[in-house]
Amino acid sequence: MTDTTTTSAQHGLSEEMLDRLDAWWRAANYLSVGQIYLLDNPLLRRPLSRDDIKPRLLGHWGTTPGLNFIYAHLNRAIRERDLDTLFVAGPGHGGPGVIASAYLDGTYSEIYSAIDQSEDGLRRLFRQFSFPGGIPSHAAPQTPGSIHEGGELGYALSHAYGAAFDNPDLLVAAVVGDGEAETGPLATAWHSNKFLNPAQDGVVLPILHLNGYKIANPTVLARIPESELLDLMRGYGHEPYIVSGGFDGEDPREVHKRMAATLDEILDRIAAIKQAAAAGELDSRPAWPMLILRTPKGWTCPAEIDGHPAENNWRSHQVPLADARDTEAHNRLLEKWLLSYRPEELFDEHGSPVELIRSLAPEGERRMSANPVANGGLLRRDLRLPDFRDYAVDVDVPGDTVAEATRVLGDWFRDVMIANPTAFRLFGPDEIASNRLQAVFETTSKQWNAEYLPIDDDNHLAPQGRAMEVLSEHQCQGWLEGYLLTGRHGVFTSYEAFVHIVDSMFNQHAKWLKSASEVPWRRPVASLNYLLSSHVWRQDHNGASHQDPGFIDHVVNKKADVVRVYLPFDANTLLSTYDHCLKSVDYVNVVVAGKQPSPQWLSMEEAIAHCTRGIGIFPWAGTEVEGEEPDVVLGCAGDIPTLEVLAAADILRRRLPDLKVRVVNVVDLMRLQSEGEHPHGLDDREYDALFTTDKPVIFAYHGYPWLIHRLTYRRNGHANLHVRGYKEEGTTTTPFDMVMLNDLDRYHLVIDVIDRVPGLASREAGLRQEMQDARLRARQYTRERGEDIPEVAEWKWGGGERTTRIDTTGGDND
Amino acid sequence: MTDTTTTSAQHGLSEEMLDRLDAWWRAANYLSVGQIYLLDNPLLRRPLSRDDIKPRLLGHWGTTPGLNFIYAHLNRAIRERDLDTLFVAGPGHGGPGVIASAYLDGTYSEIYSAIDQSEDGLRRLFRQFSFPGGIPSHAAPQTPGSIHEGGELGYALSHAYGAAFDNPDLLVAAVVGDGEAETGPLATAWHSNKFLNPAQDGVVLPILHLNGYKIANPTVLARIPESELLDLMRGYGHEPYIVSGGFDGEDPREVHKRMAATLDEILDRIAAIKQAAAAGELDSRPAWPMLILRTPKGWTCPAEIDGHPAENNWRSHQVPLADARDTEAHNRLLEKWLLSYRPEELFDEHGSPVELIRSLAPEGERRMSANPVANGGLLRRDLRLPDFRDYAVDVDVPGDTVAEATRVLGDWFRDVMIANPTAFRLFGPDEIASNRLQAVFETTSKQWNAEYLPIDDDNHLAPQGRAMEVLSEHQCQGWLEGYLLTGRHGVFTSYEAFVHIVDSMFNQHAKWLKSASEVPWRRPVASLNYLLSSHVWRQDHNGASHQDPGFIDHVVNKKADVVRVYLPFDANTLLSTYDHCLKSVDYVNVVVAGKQPSPQWLSMEEAIAHCTRGIGIFPWAGTEVEGEEPDVVLGCAGDIPTLEVLAAADILRRRLPDLKVRVVNVVDLMRLQSEGEHPHGLDDREYDALFTTDKPVIFAYHGYPWLIHRLTYRRNGHANLHVRGYKEEGTTTTPFDMVMLNDLDRYHLVIDVIDRVPGLASREAGLRQEMQDARLRARQYTRERGEDIPEVAEWKWGGGERTTRIDTTGGDND
Repeated sequence: MTDTTTTSAQHGLSEEMLDRLDAWWRAANYLSVGQIYLLDNPLLRRPLSRDDIKPRLLGHWGTTPGLNFIYAHLNRAIRERDLDTLFVAGPGHGGPGVIASAYLDGTYSEIYSAIDQSEDGLRRLFRQFSFPGGIPSHAAPQTPGSIHEGGELGYALSHAYGAAFDNPDLLVAAVVGDGEAETGPLATAWHSNKFLNPAQDGVVLPILHLNGYKIANPTVLARIPESELLDLMRGYGHEPYIVSGGFDGEDPREVHKRMAATLDEILDRIAAIKQAAAAGELDSRPAWPMLILRTPKGWTCPAEIDGHPAENNWRSHQVPLADARDTEAHNRLLEKWLLSYRPEELFDEHGSPVELIRSLAPEGERRMSANPVANGGLLRRDLRLPDFRDYAVDVDVPGDTVAEATRVLGDWFRDVMIANPTAFRLFGPDEIASNRLQAVFETTSKQWNAEYLPIDDDNHLAPQGRAMEVLSEHQCQGWLEGYLLTGRHGVFTSYEAFVHIVDSMFNQHAKWLKSASEVPWRRPVASLNYLLSSHVWRQDHNGASHQDPGFIDHVVNKKADVVRVYLPFDANTLLSTYDHCLKSVDYVNVVVAGKQPSPQWLSMEEAIAHCTRGIGIFPWAGTEVEGEEPDVVLGCAGDIPTLEVLAAADILRRRLPDLKVRVVNVVDLMRLQSEGEHPHGLDDREYDALFTTDKPVIFAYHGYPWLIHRLTYRRNGHANLHVRGYKEEGTTTTPFDMVMLNDLDRYHLVIDVIDRVPGLASREAGLRQEMQDARLRARQYTRERGEDIPEVAEWKWGGGERTTRIDTTGGDND
Repeated sequence: MTDTTTTSAQHGLSEEMLDRLDAWWRAANYLSVGQIYLLDNPLLRRPLSRDDIKPRLLGHWGTTPGLNFIYAHLNRAIRERDLDTLFVAGPGHGGPGVIASAYLDGTYSEIYSAIDQSEDGLRRLFRQFSFPGGIPSHAAPQTPGSIHEGGELGYALSHAYGAAFDNPDLLVAAVVGDGEAETGPLATAWHSNKFLNPAQDGVVLPILHLNGYKIANPTVLARIPESELLDLMRGYGHEPYIVSGGFDGEDPREVHKRMAATLDEILDRIAAIKQAAAAGELDSRPAWPMLILRTPKGWTCPAEIDGHPAENNWRSHQVPLADARDTEAHNRLLEKWLLSYRPEELFDEHGSPVELIRSLAPEGERRMSANPVANGGLLRRDLRLPDFRDYAVDVDVPGDTVAEATRVLGDWFRDVMIANPTAFRLFGPDEIASNRLQAVFETTSKQWNAEYLPIDDDNHLAPQGRAMEVLSEHQCQGWLEGYLLTGRHGVFTSYEAFVHIVDSMFNQHAKWLKSASEVPWRRPVASLNYLLSSHVWRQDHNGASHQDPGFIDHVVNKKADVVRVYLPFDANTLLSTYDHCLKSVDYVNVVVAGKQPSPQWLSMEEAIAHCTRGIGIFPWAGTEVEGEEPDVVLGCAGDIPTLEVLAAADILRRRLPDLKVRVVNVVDLMRLQSEGEHPHGLDDREYDALFTTDKPVIFAYHGYPWLIHRLTYRRNGHANLHVRGYKEEGTTTTPFDMVMLNDLDRYHLVIDVIDRVPGLASREAGLRQEMQDARLRARQYTRERGEDIPEVAEWKWGGGERTTRIDTTGGDND
């Protein structure tokens, strides 16, 4: 014992603290195993019977003892150093462990009063886990202290950094599983340290938990030489520390000592860096510490089951004793396993954790499971929003003004940043300027903590800034999610096509929002706002790979309570829409908007009225007769479709003046769905009043045309609805050729009207032919000259004197 | 000059070779600039006029001179060493460069005879680039030698490794842009070297091209200390070499010399490793060389434009002189830039490249642009497929047999591997065994070239194997794409929910297939086959994060000519479906299938007949009267919906024997679409014959219900179609609770029938109530006991004696 004492003492770890750490760890492990297996007999006060076992054994043991080990040691550090700490469990399938610790520190019983610290509470704790009507098996929204479910792997570090931004006193301990570390998003997320400001942001401590195995395979990082692993971590810009132990039956107390000592070293180093940063003495990016923790997978479970290794093997990934209810042999082994933690030392006669354990828990909000940053809605404050009306583009006559919608929005974003210096950030994959939001750089910079060159003066880079740019949609999304879930606000701007890169991350966030809204103690967080530009119709310069409007289709599969889709078609509608988005909570708002110089259609007053309704008639664009039904409805959603519909309406007004045309524009796409399907849905009466029940509707839509059918198939008159949209035809060509390739152009829309309105086809065969000739002429002109024919490039609504030239000089950057 | 000569000589680089390299590079650069800017006057034989300039300037200059530089040096190496080399341009937006080199080596004119090596050919070459009716701006399918469009960044290394597998003599030179290197998929793809067999696979030479800037920002890897970058590459398991040059006006010839010398060192090292591997003398994973090439972005373009730096700056990313047609100043500058390459030395009087340049090109198929691996269809051979009928599950009576569909398929896959030892691989993100395909391990292993431990005996790991497992869906997809595009075959198996991780990669591959099918000289490649299991209905154990059937929705947005979706519902239909998939070309086949023990419904003969039709009536399941229309149609697609529909039909048969029920099952989802929309679509007559035109249809669908409406909205009787599916309700619970949560359960389907068939609602109020009670009882039982109520868990079709127990003991691993 002398040696041990000496070792402990060297690092200031008393025997009593060692006892506490080990007791906490054993208790958390016991509670974890209990949750996976036990229906009853929670303290094993009678021999374990097969009826005590759940009929279905669901949960993941393998990663759990490691999470419990880390949690215990962080608790000691928090108490000793009064740290403000958020715990991110990358392997969120280790839910039993995170829940066990939240139970041991008391938070769980405070929130869920039926799960109190008694034998009966333990019984409920165990039973509810992965049980029908109970709680999920992962670190889900129901789990106190969690902002990261970890069901899909790969986002632990991005979430951790998102939480750390603008939280200068926060330490985020982010456990990265070695399986998770193989994912792409995680592999690039290590570089987040080049985007963190040591003075004004918090600290992320990555803990790479090498337990060697995934579901059924070893992990890559556990099977490269340690020198390579250290090189890799240094290459990522970290100073790596290693703790390894628990193998071959090593006494866990020895591992506790090494862990405590190493964690102290790390935290000392972090404190020194923070101090230097606060004093302005850091002149370059620090090499932040990170910890490599190498322990056996499934540590402390039976070494062998049915002749196969269990501990330190992939077989302990999920439920090592699968037949504990079905066979006596497994049942005996489970009892022995549970008793190995000596529960009688850990829980008192009432079933409460003993003082030795409770005394390791930090106090109040210092408990990681009670940290308010993990329930970000508690901290969220409404943004101070400058009046967006002040940024309006003057539109006296529709189409008479030209503006770039996103550039105007950028002006407003700039002032949102000024008004909210620590709670609003803009995220983009090297596309903020390309999407024309560069006005924000008048007030802020792109946060950058890598090297600088003299030439960077005009790069808008600085150690502190509110714009975050990295060429990884995964990082942008992950950072933003972490930022939102800890109570702040933000926008992710991306090219429309490549936002599909984060389809799966969107899924997980939408699912989180849906579940969180059902958890009473979770408070609403700011919505996740997308601004998608450089959209399908104006990727004429990059070609097919950059043309994909399907993110909307992906998004609308999620719960209607959570998702909103907007297609503002000019600057004023975009401003009005975004004001709404930045005020909203608990949604995902998808806004698709153009960036090219385009005609502006609505004054700010009209835009507000139109956006408030989300859908409406453009009375100035149609040729209706008051009190009569139109002959045809031209629907539109999106800036380019709106332009083409207005151009078609213009032709119809001139050429078929007696035809009663109505133009309906949709900004809020969910208005098209039935009210029963989506809270924004129009009731049928309202829908019919706009689209009629029996007249042909020619609808020009921004994206894949069938989405409009999917939204409206139950509507009256759906059989008369004909949708034009992107049908996956496109290449490097001109903007008007793009709409022609997909039959969305003005001429084709006029042909559609002629073909659909009864009687017109025979009467107006000449006009129909003219339209076909116009298409052919436009096509030929473009093939010969390489640009759009002047009659469309310089077309102006209503034939006024000023021409509204569509910018066809080429795409923006990238 | 003495020094230079000496330096060259040291590395065996003659002055003449130096001249060749530099002439090639200058010529390729000239042709690249010409493609971006020029309509006419291709050799500048008269002063450049503004009319010579394209009206729209589209293309990317920044990365191009670097690509051209690498290409030239690889040509030298290929000639000197007779290398079989594939070039992968990660920054595929450098299309002008790749095309320029394909033109210089003669391939381009061989394929596109109008673009010959003459002044007129040059004019056409320039004009067509990014021009309406011409060619795309990226390294698209139209580009000889390309398997990698590079429109979306991040997949260069995955594609390169996919090409290298089973191509032992191939060298894949993969240029990684430093912007691309920030993406997640690329960041993890470096680890591909742990999955390559040095003896039986080819070599990947990653060339990290640090040109410092992305669209509008510096890159991370260009702005970390070189020591960190070297650590990072060593950490990834590589031996890094560096060539840096061209800055501050350095003579390019000096950079050529360093590049040639370093490339020789690298290729010597590679040759040594390959030799050792072939001799069996490699006892561990080698540290393969990789090259870091640091050159200025936009190298050789004007140093400054309009007072801003251009060369070595992000401003040269796309088109540095945007106003070359509009302003005399830019026009002059462009002329000066073009003349700086001294075109008169590069092209003869006919406009052909001079001998100095032509002599650098390798011969025939050694030319990288003519390498047949880049037109994989040329090399593809049909798989030798064992007769899938031999793997049939015996089904004498529907529902009488229990099997795990994917496990049976695994047996066949095993024998496919045996019959095709070098042309078929299986890719999975640590999910091959979890998806129950482990029979393949009876004949092959998981290819693994990281460290081994004694315990690995039962891990099925080996230096050579046909199963590729890494916890990265990106890697699986990227490797498989590279493997297919170079003429081989494969399957990617994933959990259904997480295949969304590769949504965007799927988009790009589907777009590639669509465009490639329009390129006459491209030959068909094997289809990309997905096997999605652990699907939404059996993620009861992992909960909501693992439940998402929306990949199908995503896929069907792509061109109908390219995508196929199959929902086989038992082992025999899965076998029949997959046999079809492995024989097909140029498709993406999405197959969703269950892995849990489930009743089997069709004998192999019936399965083949059913799958051949893709849709059909189960006559044994319904209660139709021959010659009469049914009262109601129960439709189903997917294994769990089929089970619930059959159980509902069973209840209806017993309880409402006079009701004429028809059961229609859909295996080939695209049969539902109109024949005009999809080549597999039924014509309306066939559709009506199955579903009637006026009877209620209750359709139980595997995924999001609205997809069925989107596919059928134009069908007769669509107003009578009522679809049940996954509506985003789910958590950790039991399998039957999952279907109940989404109203897809048998009881609810019976209620739907009662509610929809005229007259039943009033007459069968009692049965309706019974069904509601049954739901309630099932729910309560599950809440109390934690497992499914026996009446559903042990339900058997037709009430036979043997019970078909649904496996409710819990999910598989993960």
